[in-house]
Amino acid sequence: MPPYIHFNHEEFGSIVKKDYTFTFAGTVSEVHIQDEIPTLDTIFTDMGQKGPRPASLLICDENTLPIARKITGEDPGVPICTLQSGEEKKTWGSVEKILGAAKAVGLGRDGIFIAAGGGVISDLTAFAASIYMRGSRLCIVSTTLLGMVDAAVGGKTGFDLFGVKNFAGTFFPAAQIYLPVESLKTLPKNEWKSGMAELIKTAVLDRDEEFFRLLKSFKGDFPRGDKLIDCIARSVALKGRIVEADPKETGTERALLNLGHTFGHALESVAGLGRLSHGEAVAWGMARSCELGLALGITPKDRADAIISLLRSFAYETAAPHPLMETDAETFLKALGGDKKKKGGKLTFIVPAAQGGQLVSDTAEKPITEFLLKNLVNGGSSKIKNLTTNHTKNTN
Amino acid sequence: MPPYIHFNHEEFGSIVKKDYTFTFAGTVSEVHIQDEIPTLDTIFTDMGQKGPRPASLLICDENTLPIARKITGEDPGVPICTLQSGEEKKTWGSVEKILGAAKAVGLGRDGIFIAAGGGVISDLTAFAASIYMRGSRLCIVSTTLLGMVDAAVGGKTGFDLFGVKNFAGTFFPAAQIYLPVESLKTLPKNEWKSGMAELIKTAVLDRDEEFFRLLKSFKGDFPRGDKLIDCIARSVALKGRIVEADPKETGTERALLNLGHTFGHALESVAGLGRLSHGEAVAWGMARSCELGLALGITPKDRADAIISLLRSFAYETAAPHPLMETDAETFLKALGGDKKKKGGKLTFIVPAAQGGQLVSDTAEKPITEFLLKNLVNGGSSKIKNLTTNHTKNTN
Repeated sequence: MPPYIHFNHEEFGSIVKKDYTFTFAGTVSEVHIQDEIPTLDTIFTDMGQKGPRPASLLICDENTLPIARKITGEDPGVPICTLQSGEEKKTWGSVEKILGAAKAVGLGRDGIFIAAGGGVISDLTAFAASIYMRGSRLCIVSTTLLGMVDAAVGGKTGFDLFGVKNFAGTFFPAAQIYLPVESLKTLPKNEWKSGMAELIKTAVLDRDEEFFRLLKSFKGDFPRGDKLIDCIARSVALKGRIVEADPKETGTERALLNLGHTFGHALESVAGLGRLSHGEAVAWGMARSCELGLALGITPKDRADAIISLLRSFAYETAAPHPLMETDAETFLKALGGDKKKKGGKLTFIVPAAQGGQLVSDTAEKPITEFLLKNLVNGGSSKIKNLTTNHTKNTN
Repeated sequence: MPPYIHFNHEEFGSIVKKDYTFTFAGTVSEVHIQDEIPTLDTIFTDMGQKGPRPASLLICDENTLPIARKITGEDPGVPICTLQSGEEKKTWGSVEKILGAAKAVGLGRDGIFIAAGGGVISDLTAFAASIYMRGSRLCIVSTTLLGMVDAAVGGKTGFDLFGVKNFAGTFFPAAQIYLPVESLKTLPKNEWKSGMAELIKTAVLDRDEEFFRLLKSFKGDFPRGDKLIDCIARSVALKGRIVEADPKETGTERALLNLGHTFGHALESVAGLGRLSHGEAVAWGMARSCELGLALGITPKDRADAIISLLRSFAYETAAPHPLMETDAETFLKALGGDKKKKGGKLTFIVPAAQGGQLVSDTAEKPITEFLLKNLVNGGSSKIKNLTTNHTKNTN
């Protein structure tokens, strides 16, 4: 068990509540960044529930059960469904467990699924809510830094299948989203590190460089108090605006949020799901994106250096091949190809531009696959050489 | 194996193609009622695919494999995924098989899932397409009368879970829908009977009684040729209009299409999924709706008689209890309560009105549960009496 970071409650107690309202493909999502964990009364009121409460269900994991109990208080009216924790439980089996619990409780289409947990719990709960009676009501109480700045806002739901992260899923934005920093008080250090990578990613995408400068100023310490709230708020605001512009990732706007993710997901797949945190994988993927952007002449040298330097200040592994990447060139490329961000059979990547990010595709003019074979994998050099030769032949 | 009804091809050859375009919650669905089974060229063109075709997948069952082969012709570019046939295969396992085949084929988000089959195949394929990479592209070639007039149009997808029909699902309208009557040439008689019940249901809901008179004029014979096309077109047109008005059944419009279904689904559940056809269950449910509507003073006596008489002319079982309903009062009521049409904890039903249909809820003023206990189940009379007494006590 990793060491816990302990905060004085005072550090969280003075915080001003920040609220955002987004509209994702016609669905209104309200986000509340606040100190305290919400109560059932607050949730039902915010969900617009007047009169008798419908049968509802709260979903958590072993780690967030105390938070779930804090939400329900003494109220036995909303039963708690507790799942095992961890990315390796992000399966259809867990979705079925939630659906079974909802059936047992007698949830109607007007019933509310309340997720209390990190990204795994909110993705699973949101997926279950999206297919229960073809769509029920959803509220997310996000309890990890990563969940707050990544999974909770934007409507992506899903679970892992065939060893591929989020292989199956839906778009189903939550009506009410609570990001209570009180719940971070007991968050393990590796979870802070995982969330930090997504904050850095958002800062890189922000065309206003103030967010990036703010993260640099922390010199590798995780932000706390008002600075933490400021970081979460900036991240939520930018993500919300991007998702509003391209809710279902049919355009190129939302794809920007995948910076570091195509590489990161592939690393997670070949390392074995759950062996490194999402944030560590994304941080490593951002370093790869910087190298790729440099090779393509899109990322300026000083920007790539600044991003990798910021990643290193938070002790992320940025070198290739990654220590957990025990694989050859073909396997890693296959894992890259299995990522759902592929479009029209072409691999696409986001790389840092002079400002913000830019989408690039693997084409004859931009031989990304070739670059990857040369730089990212630890197969035997002769094998890589052969593959590169073949690739060159094919594109001639 | 039930006897096949054989048609001369001439009976289908002279038919005029009828096209409808609907917009369901922002998604355009084009419906083609036509003689011939479409080819891949037609499908890709109608799907707006210009240039190279993306990796795509055709899904069928053992019965519709010949139709699937007719669609692909000699083209090996679109692989066929063949499922076992039958309602009892409408499971997560089948969804996973489709998703696995799509992964093996390398389907991208721009790939097209093509369903070739009846309601089970189209519901499963549409669900898989809706969660594959959070929503891929979908085309349905409906090959049964029931599929054409029920599952193909309107965007409901799903599969059975925990013994409940369509327990999990999504709204995901197909972009292109083909209803080729050529595929009905080899349709077994029981499948005709299953589809006929949905045609009768739609005719009952149609405020213009011409459709109902048309069905009566068949005197129990299944329609063929132009009359068949006419029936399918009327059914599609009415259903399309209703779904356009209330795509996700959040209002009361779309709920009208559930006429006979709350009773029918409960019967299917207690009889054991797959033991009687959907149409037989819905027909029996419509007879129950007539009785309930009569008891509530909503359905005029002569209308109830006309509907039950039409059902009987097509040899549907209309008497309660149904021969396959080996259950007591409580079990049947529980099955009714498990149906996903429940709202706010209340059972709701559609009953025939003087014209069209009307939604009613179980309330103190309209003690539907009490009526059901008295009329629909074959438990011991003393037990039913006790339950009725309890119920009366509770509502006093």
